[in-house]
Amino acid sequence: MLTTDAERLWNSLMELARIGATPKGGVRRLALSDEDRRGRDCFRDWCRAAGMQVEIDAIGNIFARRAGTDRDLAPVAIGSHLDSQPSGGKFDGAYGVMAGLELVRTLDDAGVRTRAPLEVVAWTNEEGSRFVPTCMGSGVFAGVHSLEHVLQQRDVDGVTVRDALGRIGYDGTASPHRLDAYFEAHIEQGPVLEEQGKTIGVVVGALGQRWFDVVVVGQDAHAGPTPMQTRRDALLAASRLVGEVHRIGSRSPDYARGTVGFMVVQPNSRNVVPGEVRMSVDLRSAKWSTLDAMVDDLRRCIRSVQDECRVEIALEEVVAFQPSEFAAELVAHVRDAAQSLGHSHLDIVSGAAHDAVYMSRIAPTAMVFVPCAGGISHNELESARPEHLAAGCDVLLHAVLRRAGASGGRAAASEAREGGEA
Amino acid sequence: MLTTDAERLWNSLMELARIGATPKGGVRRLALSDEDRRGRDCFRDWCRAAGMQVEIDAIGNIFARRAGTDRDLAPVAIGSHLDSQPSGGKFDGAYGVMAGLELVRTLDDAGVRTRAPLEVVAWTNEEGSRFVPTCMGSGVFAGVHSLEHVLQQRDVDGVTVRDALGRIGYDGTASPHRLDAYFEAHIEQGPVLEEQGKTIGVVVGALGQRWFDVVVVGQDAHAGPTPMQTRRDALLAASRLVGEVHRIGSRSPDYARGTVGFMVVQPNSRNVVPGEVRMSVDLRSAKWSTLDAMVDDLRRCIRSVQDECRVEIALEEVVAFQPSEFAAELVAHVRDAAQSLGHSHLDIVSGAAHDAVYMSRIAPTAMVFVPCAGGISHNELESARPEHLAAGCDVLLHAVLRRAGASGGRAAASEAREGGEA
Repeated sequence: MLTTDAERLWNSLMELARIGATPKGGVRRLALSDEDRRGRDCFRDWCRAAGMQVEIDAIGNIFARRAGTDRDLAPVAIGSHLDSQPSGGKFDGAYGVMAGLELVRTLDDAGVRTRAPLEVVAWTNEEGSRFVPTCMGSGVFAGVHSLEHVLQQRDVDGVTVRDALGRIGYDGTASPHRLDAYFEAHIEQGPVLEEQGKTIGVVVGALGQRWFDVVVVGQDAHAGPTPMQTRRDALLAASRLVGEVHRIGSRSPDYARGTVGFMVVQPNSRNVVPGEVRMSVDLRSAKWSTLDAMVDDLRRCIRSVQDECRVEIALEEVVAFQPSEFAAELVAHVRDAAQSLGHSHLDIVSGAAHDAVYMSRIAPTAMVFVPCAGGISHNELESARPEHLAAGCDVLLHAVLRRAGASGGRAAASEAREGGEA
Repeated sequence: MLTTDAERLWNSLMELARIGATPKGGVRRLALSDEDRRGRDCFRDWCRAAGMQVEIDAIGNIFARRAGTDRDLAPVAIGSHLDSQPSGGKFDGAYGVMAGLELVRTLDDAGVRTRAPLEVVAWTNEEGSRFVPTCMGSGVFAGVHSLEHVLQQRDVDGVTVRDALGRIGYDGTASPHRLDAYFEAHIEQGPVLEEQGKTIGVVVGALGQRWFDVVVVGQDAHAGPTPMQTRRDALLAASRLVGEVHRIGSRSPDYARGTVGFMVVQPNSRNVVPGEVRMSVDLRSAKWSTLDAMVDDLRRCIRSVQDECRVEIALEEVVAFQPSEFAAELVAHVRDAAQSLGHSHLDIVSGAAHDAVYMSRIAPTAMVFVPCAGGISHNELESARPEHLAAGCDVLLHAVLRRAGASGGRAAASEAREGGEA
């Protein structure tokens, strides 16, 4: 079977990682910064060198198109993002974009054409570190966010998305267009593949998310003179809730998670019983009905902790994000490709949001995960093995070929055989 | 029975509270600031006007002496502090000093002399807000802290205690001297008297304290991709400890308290499982053996939470403060005085440290508590009722007279009768 060039893929990733490289081996390439521009330029130049036609849309998404043999077909898109977290790694996002490029280079080398055109896409500002919302470019493309709204968003220095896009020269004019399908390869950003010793994650969907702000109000009081039974300790109440959120996440089905990641205590003095705690609650599950049940459980716990600790607890929902189920046919293509290539694989759900989550709302979508060391990501220490990255790229290649259809070259014959059309 | 002048006491407190008055009705009179100097000057002038001889020692403690009839006797001291928290109230500290002054004025008006001299004392920097340690002046006087050490302490601007004392002109030369006894009146700073409807707290001692810094180290991880069972959640572990500290405080005897007042979470982002938590633990009890048992219990909980949550927990003791038992004879004088004056009273333990705690190490000591509204203190909203303050001052007067012995005037006769010497 046709395979991609592991070394070329690795070299592309390493060369890209020099743009915004940090001393600890990571990457700082904030959306629409000079480093992002240089990353984009690099990608654009490589795509043009591979004979692709590059277009930019109004939110700065980059579409690099390789023509297909059938002019009437919508493109099969392969993408991810080039921006990074402030202290990010070399693979988060960059891998998916470079895998798309490597796939095209491989097809070129093998002389394989596809019936549907291919489009390698770099979405603008997936991370949301400099400008919110996250997944900005794919969100606009999918119609989730209005273009005008996101162009007005500002970074901490007051610079708008519109001005930042113009300044780096990525305020394009490409029109929105239909995609036949969307594929995205990504490091897992979690520990499951590594722990289970699997090379390929066949991503069946993404968790829904419901995020809450919680404010617990008790009464601050001197730790010494105030007897235990008269206290209204906001931190005691908040701590009970942390335990309940963990229990809800642990005991609910459908890949459920429950996390308190943020907590601030007032007045936060060692000899004062805390009078107020602000905290977050992040609930996730692959099923909306499960999320509903988790939220009901949380509300019950809040009422009970309120009574028990004699505090007031306010709960405000700040984000609600539907679970995504990826397209069964494309997911099967990914699974079949891993199987055919002889890579160990595992059906997995994405706990994090990706551009693929928005794309799944407007086109059949699938994702390929590969392991990253210790599940660590959004960190300069983020690390992935070249052979895993290459395996993921190979799987991506064959899944894309199944969707786009191949003609000519060795791969086409292989693809046709697998498809049972020979 | 002789009673003090409730209105004069109240007026003194209100006039003193104008120095460093805050918009919300509180006081900001940080130790050795200009406001502290003005408060000290005011007290010194009032003492001189009352015919007392005022001396300052090397750490700025002010001793205002009213001569006794027996030159060989050491003075009976009555005191507290004039400095305040940054957003403090009108009564914390000031009440004890003004009550001492009011007691002397009352004796003057009534023509009563005491056998032992009386000394009204204003101790330097009880609060410890600007300079640490707290109870600085009484700590030096009692030999707990060396003078040289505390003179070198600096505030956040780098100013030393030595320089600040010199600048406000309160670097005196009075020698250390023996005290026959020490009395201190103070607002309770807790809710017990108010809740139980009692006017006078007969303070039998002060809680011992053991303070700890706790560092919980887990592993930060994405809240989405990281399954519940693979997490090493530092906040979950910290929250379990908060619950255990509350349980230890609630179930231990001897007025035990257990408080986590301080907690900081890292990285403190709503979609990241926390990798590190720093927190405080404050354990108190009236018995050292109980404190020991509480600390043992805490260590057992830490080991169990470590295993359960797969985190590392470091425990460091940062303060250990022995419980104080006040002098039974003087405590009985306070109780008897409250009884004779017809004030409802309650034996109570001081949960907080006071200058009296250090004084109890070098002289027989007792304290008188009066209620404060809602138990609120260290707050601009701190409030106390004039009739409670007057009642506490009357109790102080008669307890002091029992110790110092009285001759002449109406009070002497009264005191003598109570003493059974008539």
